[in-house]
Amino acid sequence: MKTIALLGATGSIGESALTVIRNQKEKFTVTGLSGYSNEALLTRQIAEFRPSHVAVSTKEIRDRLRETFPFLHLYYGENALTELAEAAPYDILLTAVSGAVGIGATVAGIQREKRIALANKETMVAAGEYINGLLSRHPGAEILPVDSEHSAIFQSLSGGAKDEVQRILLTASGGTFRGKKRKDLENITIDEALTHPTWKMGKKITVDSSTLVNKGLEVIEARHLFQIPYEKIKVLIHPESIVHSMVEYRDRCVIAQLGNHDMKLPIQYALTYPQRLANPIFEGLDFVKLKALTFEEPDRETFRGLDLAYEAGRLGGTMPAVMNAANEVAVSLFLRRKISFLAIYDIIEKAMARHSPQEASDLGTILMADKETRAWVNKTYEN
Amino acid sequence: MKTIALLGATGSIGESALTVIRNQKEKFTVTGLSGYSNEALLTRQIAEFRPSHVAVSTKEIRDRLRETFPFLHLYYGENALTELAEAAPYDILLTAVSGAVGIGATVAGIQREKRIALANKETMVAAGEYINGLLSRHPGAEILPVDSEHSAIFQSLSGGAKDEVQRILLTASGGTFRGKKRKDLENITIDEALTHPTWKMGKKITVDSSTLVNKGLEVIEARHLFQIPYEKIKVLIHPESIVHSMVEYRDRCVIAQLGNHDMKLPIQYALTYPQRLANPIFEGLDFVKLKALTFEEPDRETFRGLDLAYEAGRLGGTMPAVMNAANEVAVSLFLRRKISFLAIYDIIEKAMARHSPQEASDLGTILMADKETRAWVNKTYEN
Repeated sequence: MKTIALLGATGSIGESALTVIRNQKEKFTVTGLSGYSNEALLTRQIAEFRPSHVAVSTKEIRDRLRETFPFLHLYYGENALTELAEAAPYDILLTAVSGAVGIGATVAGIQREKRIALANKETMVAAGEYINGLLSRHPGAEILPVDSEHSAIFQSLSGGAKDEVQRILLTASGGTFRGKKRKDLENITIDEALTHPTWKMGKKITVDSSTLVNKGLEVIEARHLFQIPYEKIKVLIHPESIVHSMVEYRDRCVIAQLGNHDMKLPIQYALTYPQRLANPIFEGLDFVKLKALTFEEPDRETFRGLDLAYEAGRLGGTMPAVMNAANEVAVSLFLRRKISFLAIYDIIEKAMARHSPQEASDLGTILMADKETRAWVNKTYEN
Repeated sequence: MKTIALLGATGSIGESALTVIRNQKEKFTVTGLSGYSNEALLTRQIAEFRPSHVAVSTKEIRDRLRETFPFLHLYYGENALTELAEAAPYDILLTAVSGAVGIGATVAGIQREKRIALANKETMVAAGEYINGLLSRHPGAEILPVDSEHSAIFQSLSGGAKDEVQRILLTASGGTFRGKKRKDLENITIDEALTHPTWKMGKKITVDSSTLVNKGLEVIEARHLFQIPYEKIKVLIHPESIVHSMVEYRDRCVIAQLGNHDMKLPIQYALTYPQRLANPIFEGLDFVKLKALTFEEPDRETFRGLDLAYEAGRLGGTMPAVMNAANEVAVSLFLRRKISFLAIYDIIEKAMARHSPQEASDLGTILMADKETRAWVNKTYEN
């Protein structure tokens, strides 16, 4: 029996994780949960999974939960996730929160030499260099990717040794606007940007998918998760999203991981690795019913998110944190109708141009770059 | 530096193997070679690779080679391959001969606890149960598959444990006549049967590919190579032959191996495993130029080769040897215009119907069933 602390339980990944756990009752117990604004759902989750430790956003929610569940260890506020990650008992910390707020909790989990099932992009994007330094000092800790692409790469890497990798082939659906050109994107509406062709996801990540910023961030993440240089990471558009990613080895054999569009598969794998468990709710891929699988080059000129990320990654230090922060605020401005779709790229570009990257050797420096960028974007474009 | 004895050097796989070795000179030396009828090519190969041991078909060839290469250890006749496999120094025995004649050599290699790079289908089809018994008594020996499909399965199996395998998905191009119905196949000519859509291969295997007997034999081979029951081996038609096979695990993740249509890749992998080596003559798969990848159910009614093989495999004992022998003679009769294309199935079926399978616990019993079947098919249909 493994114990799990799940941060971001009320989000899309969090709910999928609880569905996995609900169907593997003999294997997993939930000891920690966190939720941000969906108090009703979090309350139901606490009632069902009976964790001992729970983190919430505000004192008000904390107080109400205390009434319902008097024996809970409760945390609230800015450091609640980190405090829970430091105090709760768990074998696996599943960080499914989005935003830089997830980094501190991951750090706490690494310091306690736990397994981190990582579904928080920011951790490896903004703090990848720092996290890898930390991991090398805590050999009992390990990070398992939850994201379907990184899980696929992780799984495909078992086909050979690290120094035998020729290229990582990171697949991308291409997003809603695949095939469109820059001028077609000038007047994109929010509703148009929120329709993803294959995966059902949250708003922020659906927009990131349509700008290819998401794929760019995944490139940075892959760089740090697998310690593979950028020139060996290639993005390939694969609209059917069945091949979740591939690894080409130097003997030109390619190992790929395929599966249905179901986040529950990589979530469970990150929890059960190195084992693979049957799960009654998982469906096999029906190859006969599948659409033909196709692959294309990404249109890097139209979807500049990819090259901006490669550039941020190569510059390194605090630059990926700045790129990520600028994008996060820009997408939020777009979703609030403050800026156009294409302005997302311009904002990222300008935020990067005005930033001189510093070494990302401590969390304070990274979070400062993140915060400063957010403030600048908000101040400059919110009006 | 590893030493290699290559049986069947003048065939298609043999030549590819020598091309691999020629480009990995620091890694491999050829110590043994065998050829059947192409004396000129074998002579050139001996001159280039300088093996110490060579096996040939006839005394005449032996005598001529002795003149040219006086210091060679030479073998000829029915047992020449086995004698070479028993006497030559080698780390790896690559058996690329076709027919039951390859079994004895493999047995010798296993008894000497060597690595067998196996490109001889008959070994695992006709003698799989026997070979597995032998392997369990010789733990230093190992069989590495050379066939592209089995190599792909072998590579994909590194993604999980044996008891976590849900299904092996063995892909098949579907052969020349994919999409045709039984009545379309009544008057197939030899030339029509010898045009394979994706792989360039010898005549026998091209016909076997068009009847799906080849794929059926591969099912039996996979059963014994990987010790996976028949109900877990599924054949999937994949006309583009890019996904060389896949393994579905019980958590519904699928691991696949992909690559160009180049036998040199799996040949090299069988030689270098567990390492993967770069090779200047290997080309990477260009996913962008690739045709769309598609998958279909095989048409088992028209292409009865598949079900005949499953039946032979499930009956077990000497039955797969009989099925294989009947097919081999039937294809040879078809290539000599003695029988029609569809008669290949009838001959296999009749040969199986008249045979009572015996336990395949020794090579003598297996070879007797093989010999008896060949004699019966020849006697009955050669006229």
